Amino acid sequence: MNEQLRVAVIGAGYWGPNLARNFRSSPDWDLVAVCDLDEARARKVVGARSTVEVVTSTVDLLARDDIDAVAIATPARTHASLALAALDAGKHVLVEKPIADHGTGARAMVARAAEADRVLMVDHTFCYTPQVLAIRDMIADGSLGEILFVDSVRINLGIVQPDVDVFWDLAPHDLSILDFILPGGLVPLGVAAQGADPIGAGQSCVGYLTLPLAGGAIAHVHVNWLSPTKIRQMVVGGSKRTLVWDDLSPQQRLTVYDRGVELGQPLPDRTTANISYRLGDAWAPALPEKEALGAMVAEFAASIRERRAPRTDGHAGLRVLDVLELASRSLTQGGRLMTAASATLETVG
Amino acid sequence: MNEQLRVAVIGAGYWGPNLARNFRSSPDWDLVAVCDLDEARARKVVGARSTVEVVTSTVDLLARDDIDAVAIATPARTHASLALAALDAGKHVLVEKPIADHGTGARAMVARAAEADRVLMVDHTFCYTPQVLAIRDMIADGSLGEILFVDSVRINLGIVQPDVDVFWDLAPHDLSILDFILPGGLVPLGVAAQGADPIGAGQSCVGYLTLPLAGGAIAHVHVNWLSPTKIRQMVVGGSKRTLVWDDLSPQQRLTVYDRGVELGQPLPDRTTANISYRLGDAWAPALPEKEALGAMVAEFAASIRERRAPRTDGHAGLRVLDVLELASRSLTQGGRLMTAASATLETVG
Amino acid sequence: MNEQLRVAVIGAGYWGPNLARNFRSSPDWDLVAVCDLDEARARKVVGARSTVEVVTSTVDLLARDDIDAVAIATPARTHASLALAALDAGKHVLVEKPIADHGTGARAMVARAAEADRVLMVDHTFCYTPQVLAIRDMIADGSLGEILFVDSVRINLGIVQPDVDVFWDLAPHDLSILDFILPGGLVPLGVAAQGADPIGAGQSCVGYLTLPLAGGAIAHVHVNWLSPTKIRQMVVGGSKRTLVWDDLSPQQRLTVYDRGVELGQPLPDRTTANISYRLGDAWAPALPEKEALGAMVAEFAASIRERRAPRTDGHAGLRVLDVLELASRSLTQGGRLMTAASATLETVG
Amino acid sequence: MNEQLRVAVIGAGYWGPNLARNFRSSPDWDLVAVCDLDEARARKVVGARSTVEVVTSTVDLLARDDIDAVAIATPARTHASLALAALDAGKHVLVEKPIADHGTGARAMVARAAEADRVLMVDHTFCYTPQVLAIRDMIADGSLGEILFVDSVRINLGIVQPDVDVFWDLAPHDLSILDFILPGGLVPLGVAAQGADPIGAGQSCVGYLTLPLAGGAIAHVHVNWLSPTKIRQMVVGGSKRTLVWDDLSPQQRLTVYDRGVELGQPLPDRTTANISYRLGDAWAPALPEKEALGAMVAEFAASIRERRAPRTDGHAGLRVLDVLELASRSLTQGGRLMTAASATLETVG
Repeated sequence: MNEQLRVAVIGAGYWGPNLARNFRSSPDWDLVAVCDLDEARARKVVGARSTVEVVTSTVDLLARDDIDAVAIATPARTHASLALAALDAGKHVLVEKPIADHGTGARAMVARAAEADRVLMVDHTFCYTPQVLAIRDMIADGSLGEILFVDSVRINLGIVQPDVDVFWDLAPHDLSILDFILPGGLVPLGVAAQGADPIGAGQSCVGYLTLPLAGGAIAHVHVNWLSPTKIRQMVVGGSKRTLVWDDLSPQQRLTVYDRGVELGQPLPDRTTANISYRLGDAWAPALPEKEALGAMVAEFAASIRERRAPRTDGHAGLRVLDVLELASRSLTQGGRLMTAASATLETVG
Repeated sequence: MNEQLRVAVIGAGYWGPNLARNFRSSPDWDLVAVCDLDEARARKVVGARSTVEVVTSTVDLLARDDIDAVAIATPARTHASLALAALDAGKHVLVEKPIADHGTGARAMVARAAEADRVLMVDHTFCYTPQVLAIRDMIADGSLGEILFVDSVRINLGIVQPDVDVFWDLAPHDLSILDFILPGGLVPLGVAAQGADPIGAGQSCVGYLTLPLAGGAIAHVHVNWLSPTKIRQMVVGGSKRTLVWDDLSPQQRLTVYDRGVELGQPLPDRTTANISYRLGDAWAPALPEKEALGAMVAEFAASIRERRAPRTDGHAGLRVLDVLELASRSLTQGGRLMTAASATLETVG
Repeated sequence: MNEQLRVAVIGAGYWGPNLARNFRSSPDWDLVAVCDLDEARARKVVGARSTVEVVTSTVDLLARDDIDAVAIATPARTHASLALAALDAGKHVLVEKPIADHGTGARAMVARAAEADRVLMVDHTFCYTPQVLAIRDMIADGSLGEILFVDSVRINLGIVQPDVDVFWDLAPHDLSILDFILPGGLVPLGVAAQGADPIGAGQSCVGYLTLPLAGGAIAHVHVNWLSPTKIRQMVVGGSKRTLVWDDLSPQQRLTVYDRGVELGQPLPDRTTANISYRLGDAWAPALPEKEALGAMVAEFAASIRERRAPRTDGHAGLRVLDVLELASRSLTQGGRLMTAASATLETVG
Repeated sequence: MNEQLRVAVIGAGYWGPNLARNFRSSPDWDLVAVCDLDEARARKVVGARSTVEVVTSTVDLLARDDIDAVAIATPARTHASLALAALDAGKHVLVEKPIADHGTGARAMVARAAEADRVLMVDHTFCYTPQVLAIRDMIADGSLGEILFVDSVRINLGIVQPDVDVFWDLAPHDLSILDFILPGGLVPLGVAAQGADPIGAGQSCVGYLTLPLAGGAIAHVHVNWLSPTKIRQMVVGGSKRTLVWDDLSPQQRLTVYDRGVELGQPLPDRTTANISYRLGDAWAPALPEKEALGAMVAEFAASIRERRAPRTDGHAGLRVLDVLELASRSLTQGGRLMTAASATLETVG
């Protein structure tokens, strides 16, 4: 057993308590302190009969020698400055998604982590669920064949913040999953976004992202705040098999349909395309019901110890952020397909 | 009991047998003949120990006096010429969806039916299901409140034809439903379409339609041929309640969530929008499991007898066709939002 | 193609129309006549523009030479006399379940069919569904291992008749399935029945059947007509795999869990039994959605042509009936486990 | 805010850690110590950076003055002696289910608690779920009408212990729920049990309990260890409505069908009973997803402070135990219906 790494959680709001709980129950970690401007909120996370410290100043916290790493669970607009300060103080950094609220800050974070030789990890939580790990494996080993389309739906209760639209709030989940499961990460040929704000909230509350991929494939994301009815479903269509992930069916979250579609030689009469369907069985792999955050904090520790990049590193965070930024641009242009090149051009022009 | 109306079904392919079966078991109708170029195929529909006639010439069929109406279940490219001939012969006409394969033909059909004072009805079958009828009623009586978004997914096995893409093949279902349930019919502010053809079929096999609606609302349709796994789901989000229609859950196809989202006065601190969610019970109305085609042929008879427009008349067929044509245009322009005006402009230009 | 066999359906009530429809659409059969005391009811089954005859006298019907077989869909109390008359007239006989309302009549039917060298088949419809056929195959080929338990639930709307309790009305379905899937048929070591009549209907409306099987296994049936809420679920637990059949989930009716339980050597400390669980994937075989009655009438024809016993012959009908009769006896004795021997003894005593 | 009550958890095995976690996060409680013969196991429950004490002697623990209550999560055979000692030491007692492994011990516990004026509570956990609370309310306020039947299925992974059969292991859940929801508690007219041991474990691994209730109603419980496939379903049939609780459907655990069955006046012809079915909507109440143990420890505190019996008191524990003991007797008599009277008689005889 390795000696435990010492960590502090910064931010005791919505997500911080979950991080704190998982660091506490992890054999890899010693949770030293919880930091929040609101002392009572931090104290509540720490709980009774505990010697975990409560801290209200990040400056004091980062100045300490008895901390190896920090986990940043504050609003996105504060990520870059906090992370840079922590890296400068020699700490390893875990940051909530999205990595930052703009590309410049995020790029600085990635660069600083490399210079400081510290781990910079983004908490793309879903990438540590048994489901997403299984999907990644099935794509990597060719079980699904060529990926033809990915369709993701996330209809979710969202607490609307005036400076964050539904794309920035919910789509990081879907995009980080896409980045994780697609071989080579999420590098779409372009991004088109359509949004709607039927309640006058001042920003999109319903959003659709279309991401053409290499080889004619397509990814699509539907995020929606306006319905308290939950749907969390991803369909991954491959040339060999189709996978459906219904995250709200705990008895059978993943189903792989051994069915495919194939284009044969054109028929002589040209009246129908020569598409053949193969109808086979469905298969639901047995997956453990493990809390993803447990695996996530373990990976954070392992990457520090093994002096390697974590599975969801700063570059993954950047790729997700790039799509979000292109989506915002597309929105202002009536849903036009934006590419990195067109975006730059536009900025230059 | 009224005297029965006499009908012939033209086309004994995929859908014709279903029409024939429903006309046969309807008290309103006397099925006189089934017409197909392929006599054996027509004979098979008629069956043994039956005096229903088998006919191979539409010219002969339309010349007969003992037929009041025809039901046209042939490929879309033949709809306009067949329907016009039938109307000229004084027959009432039921035509499969889409009403035609181009707007000019469809407009001629609507005009000719008006001149001839005959019923022209489009078989928008789903509009005769108990589910769609219930949704229409709930929207009309205000149960859902203002419609904020409609999201429709139809992942379906499709027999690919070289001259029809996935939008023209599957979206007529979704569009005809939208046309039926939205007050005033489907009159979107524009149409944007994104398609993908990852198998090299020569046309879109995966398609997404975005339809901005008046008042900031949005409708979205996902049609997809590439997955033999079926999903048929529509979510209708209203300001008062949200409805989910899962057509593959026969025990509970419709669920109405008594939950809504509301935008209140801006909060003084502006840090969060003042959105309130109301979390209430779910409710699944008891609906009969009736075959929609039975109700459809009954409506065809009623509209003839009552000398009135049927529920899904030629104008409904035209509204659906207009969206399909704009979608095809948008596809050729990289998904740009097309409006009727822009389409005309473009044609003129 | 063989020449068609000629059949008449006797009884145009609840089930007769389904039989008639399937005989009509079968290439094996020519439906010559439908017979019912109520001529209008029979005529409605025959329909318009049809030359299928309507008959009101079974005597006249059975005297005809142009009929090879009859299908009897009348109340159970009339089965024996009708079937015996038909067999005496040289007709093959298909009879609805239960085969008869008492063992004496049923035994006479079986004997007479053998003497007359005619086919006697019982319409155990469920045995012709793709699901039950698949279950039978999986048990036969050892996929499930040794059968440890079978648990069947059938909560169903039932039209209460004063002379039939819920066991006789619904359990024939479950018992015929058990008889079909268990190697060697349904030959329980005894039958215990518990019933309840909480609404004062005069007979059991809720019923539980316990059937100890050889080797320590057990089958259990829950039939219930007091709840219009439907549940139709069978769990077949084997030493290798467990199968769940949920007949109301059309997307996935059968699921096979590759999980088993095994008893190892006793542990030294005796504090826990050495049971090991194996947790593997689930698997849903692709099964066609075919109407069982189509396969049933095909089997009736094949057994006649091949001069062999049909899959669900009179002996299967008798085994089901024997359980029903023991259940009725058990009910009168406070749920005591009844065996064939104890029943005979009791009768003698 | 009241001063916190001080509690120790005895037993750090399967369930103790859950109790400890809930006492820790409860505002009502101060978890002072965790006690187990195995110190390391207790220390693991306490965790790092904690001042909760680890104790290995119950004698020492019970002798302390700084503890108000103990929670006993040890094997059932130790419940009575531990609880009696704790009551004698003036502590309030929460004990896992079943209350004890025999009636004599349980009765002594109830008597001693009364004499000592201490709270004796049984951890019938399910009675603190939002689902069971809702069912109890719906029965109490007449929403379901007269209860006609209750059918409970619990197919569950079970760790087989040589001295506990499936009835004693799993049925306490179902029986405690029945005791909680039925007006007047669970007082059946008798108990019949059928068990099977197809793997040679030495005790029943599959079990069926039949419990006739007053007024012709019936309750039935199916418990089963042999299938790792989980089913947890309870159907409560009432004269007005039927309720289905599927605990493995987190999106809709409870569904109330507004459907009933009614027996009218006998029909003149006596050919069918005059049963009428009412088919109405289904309704799924919005229930919070709260951990039951949180509500349970709150009730334990409230009952101590208010000096009243807790919701699931010793008498409830006794009623459940009585059924388990009658079931064991019925098993030895081939499933005969046992009543309290017959059991006594038999003992006397």
